[in-house]
Amino acid sequence: MSSPDNSSLTQHPDRFVRRHIGPRPEEYPLMLGTLGLDSLDELVAKTLPDTIRGGKPLDLPPALSEREAMTELAGLASLNRVFRSYLGLGYSDTVTPAVIRRCVLENPGWYTQYTPYQAEIAQGRLEALLNFQTMVLDLTGMQVANASMLDEATAAAEAMTLCHRQLDKKADGKAYFISERCHPHTIAVVQTRAEPLGIDVLVGPHESIDFQQTPCFGALLQYPTSDGEVLDYQPLVAAAHNAGVLVTVAADLMSLLLLRAPGEFGADVVVGNSQRFGVPLGFGGPHAAFMATRDEYKRQIPGRIVGVSKDVEGRPALRLALGTREQHIRRDRATSNICTAQVLLAVIASMYAVYHGPEGLRRIAARIHAQTLALARELTKLGHRVRHSAVFDTLRVTPACGAKTVLATAQAKGINLRQYDDGDLGIALDETVDDADLRDLLAVFGDTRMPVPIALPQDTGIDASLRRTSGYLQHPVFNSYRSETDLLRYIKRLENRDLSLTSSMIPLGSCTMKLNAAAEMFPISYPGFAALHPFAPAEQAMGYTQLCERLESMLAEITGFSAVSLMPNAGSQGEYTGLLVIRAYHRARGEAHRNVCLIPVSAHGTNPASAVMAGMKVVVVACDEHGNVDLADLQTKIDQHKQNLSALMITYPSTHGVFEEAIRTICQRIHDAGGQVYVDGANLNALVGLCRPGDFGGDVCHLNLHKTFCIPHGGGGPGMGPIGVAAHLAPFLPRHPFATGGGTQGIGPVSSAPLGSASILPISFAYIRMMGAEGLAEATKLAILNANYIAKRLEAHYPVVYTGKHGLVAHECIVDLRGLKHSANIDPDDVAKRLMDYGFHAPTMSWPVAGTLMIEPTESEPLAELDRFCEAMIAIREEIKEIETGRADTHNNVLKSAPHTAEVLTRDDWNRPYSRERAAFPLSWVREKKFWPSVSRVDNVFGDRNLICACPPLEAYAD
Amino acid sequence: MSSPDNSSLTQHPDRFVRRHIGPRPEEYPLMLGTLGLDSLDELVAKTLPDTIRGGKPLDLPPALSEREAMTELAGLASLNRVFRSYLGLGYSDTVTPAVIRRCVLENPGWYTQYTPYQAEIAQGRLEALLNFQTMVLDLTGMQVANASMLDEATAAAEAMTLCHRQLDKKADGKAYFISERCHPHTIAVVQTRAEPLGIDVLVGPHESIDFQQTPCFGALLQYPTSDGEVLDYQPLVAAAHNAGVLVTVAADLMSLLLLRAPGEFGADVVVGNSQRFGVPLGFGGPHAAFMATRDEYKRQIPGRIVGVSKDVEGRPALRLALGTREQHIRRDRATSNICTAQVLLAVIASMYAVYHGPEGLRRIAARIHAQTLALARELTKLGHRVRHSAVFDTLRVTPACGAKTVLATAQAKGINLRQYDDGDLGIALDETVDDADLRDLLAVFGDTRMPVPIALPQDTGIDASLRRTSGYLQHPVFNSYRSETDLLRYIKRLENRDLSLTSSMIPLGSCTMKLNAAAEMFPISYPGFAALHPFAPAEQAMGYTQLCERLESMLAEITGFSAVSLMPNAGSQGEYTGLLVIRAYHRARGEAHRNVCLIPVSAHGTNPASAVMAGMKVVVVACDEHGNVDLADLQTKIDQHKQNLSALMITYPSTHGVFEEAIRTICQRIHDAGGQVYVDGANLNALVGLCRPGDFGGDVCHLNLHKTFCIPHGGGGPGMGPIGVAAHLAPFLPRHPFATGGGTQGIGPVSSAPLGSASILPISFAYIRMMGAEGLAEATKLAILNANYIAKRLEAHYPVVYTGKHGLVAHECIVDLRGLKHSANIDPDDVAKRLMDYGFHAPTMSWPVAGTLMIEPTESEPLAELDRFCEAMIAIREEIKEIETGRADTHNNVLKSAPHTAEVLTRDDWNRPYSRERAAFPLSWVREKKFWPSVSRVDNVFGDRNLICACPPLEAYAD
Repeated sequence: MSSPDNSSLTQHPDRFVRRHIGPRPEEYPLMLGTLGLDSLDELVAKTLPDTIRGGKPLDLPPALSEREAMTELAGLASLNRVFRSYLGLGYSDTVTPAVIRRCVLENPGWYTQYTPYQAEIAQGRLEALLNFQTMVLDLTGMQVANASMLDEATAAAEAMTLCHRQLDKKADGKAYFISERCHPHTIAVVQTRAEPLGIDVLVGPHESIDFQQTPCFGALLQYPTSDGEVLDYQPLVAAAHNAGVLVTVAADLMSLLLLRAPGEFGADVVVGNSQRFGVPLGFGGPHAAFMATRDEYKRQIPGRIVGVSKDVEGRPALRLALGTREQHIRRDRATSNICTAQVLLAVIASMYAVYHGPEGLRRIAARIHAQTLALARELTKLGHRVRHSAVFDTLRVTPACGAKTVLATAQAKGINLRQYDDGDLGIALDETVDDADLRDLLAVFGDTRMPVPIALPQDTGIDASLRRTSGYLQHPVFNSYRSETDLLRYIKRLENRDLSLTSSMIPLGSCTMKLNAAAEMFPISYPGFAALHPFAPAEQAMGYTQLCERLESMLAEITGFSAVSLMPNAGSQGEYTGLLVIRAYHRARGEAHRNVCLIPVSAHGTNPASAVMAGMKVVVVACDEHGNVDLADLQTKIDQHKQNLSALMITYPSTHGVFEEAIRTICQRIHDAGGQVYVDGANLNALVGLCRPGDFGGDVCHLNLHKTFCIPHGGGGPGMGPIGVAAHLAPFLPRHPFATGGGTQGIGPVSSAPLGSASILPISFAYIRMMGAEGLAEATKLAILNANYIAKRLEAHYPVVYTGKHGLVAHECIVDLRGLKHSANIDPDDVAKRLMDYGFHAPTMSWPVAGTLMIEPTESEPLAELDRFCEAMIAIREEIKEIETGRADTHNNVLKSAPHTAEVLTRDDWNRPYSRERAAFPLSWVREKKFWPSVSRVDNVFGDRNLICACPPLEAYAD
Repeated sequence: MSSPDNSSLTQHPDRFVRRHIGPRPEEYPLMLGTLGLDSLDELVAKTLPDTIRGGKPLDLPPALSEREAMTELAGLASLNRVFRSYLGLGYSDTVTPAVIRRCVLENPGWYTQYTPYQAEIAQGRLEALLNFQTMVLDLTGMQVANASMLDEATAAAEAMTLCHRQLDKKADGKAYFISERCHPHTIAVVQTRAEPLGIDVLVGPHESIDFQQTPCFGALLQYPTSDGEVLDYQPLVAAAHNAGVLVTVAADLMSLLLLRAPGEFGADVVVGNSQRFGVPLGFGGPHAAFMATRDEYKRQIPGRIVGVSKDVEGRPALRLALGTREQHIRRDRATSNICTAQVLLAVIASMYAVYHGPEGLRRIAARIHAQTLALARELTKLGHRVRHSAVFDTLRVTPACGAKTVLATAQAKGINLRQYDDGDLGIALDETVDDADLRDLLAVFGDTRMPVPIALPQDTGIDASLRRTSGYLQHPVFNSYRSETDLLRYIKRLENRDLSLTSSMIPLGSCTMKLNAAAEMFPISYPGFAALHPFAPAEQAMGYTQLCERLESMLAEITGFSAVSLMPNAGSQGEYTGLLVIRAYHRARGEAHRNVCLIPVSAHGTNPASAVMAGMKVVVVACDEHGNVDLADLQTKIDQHKQNLSALMITYPSTHGVFEEAIRTICQRIHDAGGQVYVDGANLNALVGLCRPGDFGGDVCHLNLHKTFCIPHGGGGPGMGPIGVAAHLAPFLPRHPFATGGGTQGIGPVSSAPLGSASILPISFAYIRMMGAEGLAEATKLAILNANYIAKRLEAHYPVVYTGKHGLVAHECIVDLRGLKHSANIDPDDVAKRLMDYGFHAPTMSWPVAGTLMIEPTESEPLAELDRFCEAMIAIREEIKEIETGRADTHNNVLKSAPHTAEVLTRDDWNRPYSRERAAFPLSWVREKKFWPSVSRVDNVFGDRNLICACPPLEAYAD
């Protein structure tokens, strides 16, 4: 009989940390041994500079088990009170079809996918995203759409800058007009965005704007208006165009099923939120917003676009199009810092459209509309004034009796109504509303009649010219999957084309594809978290409030900062927000002239892009041959810009995967010059529990909750990018018109919702709660150990580019393929595609150094998987040697022809200089773990030259 | 603007019936047209005999939407109050690892699999089941185990009959001894089972049984005892063996991690429940029970056994072993009627063991044990009498103060304790118990001390001779997947080897593999349903009570019966229970001599097996050439056995897939002869909403909720087999010692738990609620239409064996392959295996007619899928023609070598007389939908000759 010690009596022996971390403690010595090290402490001592290593462990509550964490989160969820919310404002309750919830939202096969850069093993989600784009295009009546935006308000802000760029030369001094009937938070976010760019924003009634009198470069209209009216914007758009003004329409996607498409009345850009297509409210997100525009602006559209191309066999194949627009190439010439999309949510919204199809969607919209008209008629009968007759789903009502009584009854019935400053009340209906809900609403407005059938309205209230006559969603994909069995198999078929963490490691440098534990994921489906409207009164959201306060406090402890804002809903948004906070700080001190942002050349491209968006001037700092900031150059640049120095943006450990020894010195020098230090948190996974940005000199740091804190990548989003700030910056944290909180002198809102993508915060909360301080520190050590283990195993085969002073890397390593181009005509792409044949996703390619692969295994990858990956890389190196030694051809070889599909390999005619078996199963364990790419190598150039970003007609596939 | 009608205003336009049924209403005319029919009504009129068609629609509540049904079930779940239950009795709370819950229990890729008869596309779950068997063997110390039993009590009953058979000749007149310290419900279920078999059961203290004095053939002991004591049974077992008595030990699997294995002290059979290995309590089920025995009884063990064999390439491959033992072959010579296992739950339990491994499991068991000892010590300190010192997790306490106060406090604290008749109280701990729980328990027993640390017990209380010293779970599979990432990938790898409904149709005749909708599945995870102990007081289970009353009432309405019992937890158990009820009815009327059961030759083999178990004598009735009961022969048999006629068992529509015109006549004749009519509900999917067994003459009918009412097959279980009975039989419905309900003169319990597998009842409830009366009837019509559509498309290629008088089939059709053996040397097996290459699971093979395939598409399969299946079957017929015409060899052809794995197809040496492409992608759409078999054709004979039913040592794979 075993004699358990007391700790095993107290604690369930199954600790989450042992499930999260891949290697077993008993394997640590072996792994350390390959590095000539004795302990994890020695590893840390030899990688992390002495100057920054923290003395004391993090002060976090003790680690919970899976069960305890899920119970704690269920308790928090139950503190949220889910009222029926008729608040509207761009968020509507919706019915997520159960099959989509189960098979997409709650399926690791979908949510653990990475961004589809490796198209051959990502055809499934690329197809779903193409469906999303097609849906947006069809409904908006536009010509090109992207594969989702972060939220409606930032989409509107991006639309403003897109318009600004189009009229670049002519735009000087011109203003941006926003109709006052846009959603208030959209207006506020656009204003936040406009100010540092020097764009004047005019907010006013659209009826009285005269573009001939008021020089504008663009205008933003809401359709239907925020208070529900369906207006005929055509004359206004015509007048705008006459004056050279580009018009953006923020549209409700559901309304477009019945209303004339914005593209049909001349809109230049259309933005909006696809949330109500099956994505839970989630207290504000994540949801997939969209942007669509005319063909002529297709190269200007921010974010990602999926395009149709072909593979080397000539078969249709999808991939991300126009990659050169992306900011990691363009840096400070970037026009947007958007990096992430909301892929998982776009997939859900697209599947909702695929499932319902055009006629189903139209029936849903028609019912909402009919209910709204019936409600308006009954309210009028009751003596209330319904302000607009041409409406889709939203009424603005002047209650006969005054708002107070109505609101009190509503509160008692668990109903939220929108309140206008003038005493009017707003009611926005959605697809979940039924007869009982309508009766409750009428009762709230004083209806004491016996229930009578709510009859069909006779008139739509909307002029024929504003009704939709054009078709949409005619493509077979929207007309083929009507039964659950059909949709289930379609979803599964797409899932199976995509490599995700359920198959094998995805060793993406600085993208930290760690475990997304099931226990972390369950709480996001708890109704208390999923069903709350983001603008529900604070007293209904006490669970979220507690969750966020505790999460903020834990993140502050982890980063060493004083305060945290959870508003930024992507890493890029965190960067931008952090820089705005720094800007506000300087301005508050009367140093508004400080506008220079120093950025090392090694930085991620979003850094300069964010700086430009924050109105800063980017000055690049050189790096030395070890990948570290060139201290001399830094000093030169500081001296040069001392008067105007606003900030340094620095990634730590560096994007080259090393801990710079001089980080404290660097921070000190910036501070000495009056600047602020912005720490890019992309690599925080190498720091948590070992040292804190706030301790070594950072003033701001954003945290990628989707990297370090386990929010899954979702195939390219959602992400979350909260920021931590030092005490002196806390007063400048962003505020939101629909929430308290934020700094006393806070900047404007940077996201549609006060907590960004609130509903995924439980994931990071659960992770921290289950790991505890010790667990987090151990995870960091293992992330470093895993990376060094790979570097060590590969170094005899591929040079490791950067290492610290003890020859060790941080949590990722860069291996050099540059020599192979010359010796064997091999590009990183060839290695990446060949890795697919071995069942692996490629590491980050040619970034931050061209011709290299950056490998980040994370702490979650088990030793056996690290070994398999290394064996694959080494086997590929042997394959390359065959080319180098002339045993294989330089153009026709197993790498150049990779990846190999099952179709190609079973073809009767095989005339390649290598065998089928070798192509398919190059190592024995590949047989057990084979993952089949669904297309051969994709032709990117062809796709960019012939851009198609909607589902092509079926004939295209017949070729 | 569309003008919705009023119904679209009232109801959300998304109706579940349109999601459940595959074909679109607009496709019905086309499908009917191929049959020369104008309407569904005509189809029904020409398939269902006039005599039985029901006049009025079912009286069921209106159909709910997915959202409404999930809300209703959430409401019912919330009526259940989840106390902390320390009741024990074979059910313990457990922690389901989140990754297993998400990726197995809640994953359609696992739960929509069929029974693994087609081994080549079922290697994943076969491996998981082999792990289960290995786990059971290792822990029990036995030599052979099956792949799960329905519950612990029926497993104990099966063990009794197994022992009885071993001693068949010598057993006459000998009794079966059961220790009174077995679980009460186990004793009761075994008694129920023994009585009709004429076995005397002696229940008494094991200390005083003298096998020399009391002739017994077997004995059943509980280990530890139901009240928690760990006894040394070795002397008793030795004495039993000396007297030729076989000993069954009902063991707690968790305790075996610390206690000497029953196999080590001589047990002949070991049974038990694996529920506490990660399977939620679920108010009693479903859980996987187990049975293990000695090698010499391996051909006697009931249920399914997974065995290791090899494929034609010589690689290891798994499959169901010893299939010839199965009752569908053996009929009335069967020794058990068990047909279903609890595969999904066995997979979960096995994954729990794989995840924790031997050391993790041992730590969990050791902690529970230590907590129990600590609790015992503190209770003793408080002055209570703890009855046994040698315990594992269960204490029997004589409270110093009397039970009443303790129970009142417990009730107030939300705690359930077991109550013994003598005033003692029972406390059984489990892995979810923590310090706070222990303190609460102590407080319930009057502990008013300030909380002090609960210290480690110094002594285990258990004699060294009873402690476990042998190892277990040494196989690599139990020692390789410790991180969640590892287990996730292992689960996914196994999942991907198995064809499920997520890939394509599984056209299993009479197994009704219809849609298992996600909305039906979500509620089973609601804590209110999942976390309840089956013997919790009724007032805590009001949600279950309401659910079951409503479900019973709806099922009664659907079947036309007066009352329903939900206790039987498999179809076979339903049959058996129904026959016991008939038997009790005759006996109550003083006609105990009525013991003849007429069964048509076409019946499923479980029918005669169940009849034998119910103490009846089986008399076979012939069928005519149309597959109908031969009325003349029936009359002869009735006349012959009139005096002793107990019942007729009849499947309707028949197992041949036709509606017999004479069904009313048949029933009438049986009634006239004083017999009862048992309707086998296997084919109820052809009747629901169109006619009712209770109306056309049935007295009892069982319902396979896992066929007709959407409980997923789970890869071979769980099932549920409730019975409906006419009013005169209602008094005899089974009773249960831990529940009210059942008939006033009810038979004994037939399952461990009163509601059988209660936690999956919400699935069937949701299905009926979402379909409504009209939806159910439409589903039935479409099931018939789909089957007839297939029959029509295939009839030119394969003869359809049985049809009704209008040339139509019911909901399934049998196609004839018998001629192909002669013309082309082709067996049904060859067609089945070749279908895999096309991506399909084979239909039922050679049952009920040898040399045929029985195809049941169900209403859920879309038209496009039916067409693909027909195209595949037709293409295979063309391939067979090539053999017939000499263009292909009779032994070396694409059918005989099917299925084709990717490995075989990419092998460098290809010397087959057909092309790789043709083997892999015989039709163009196969490319899109390819499913790869993971092994080549499995050698069954080899496996049965060399039975290995535990994970083989790794060297075995190296061959």
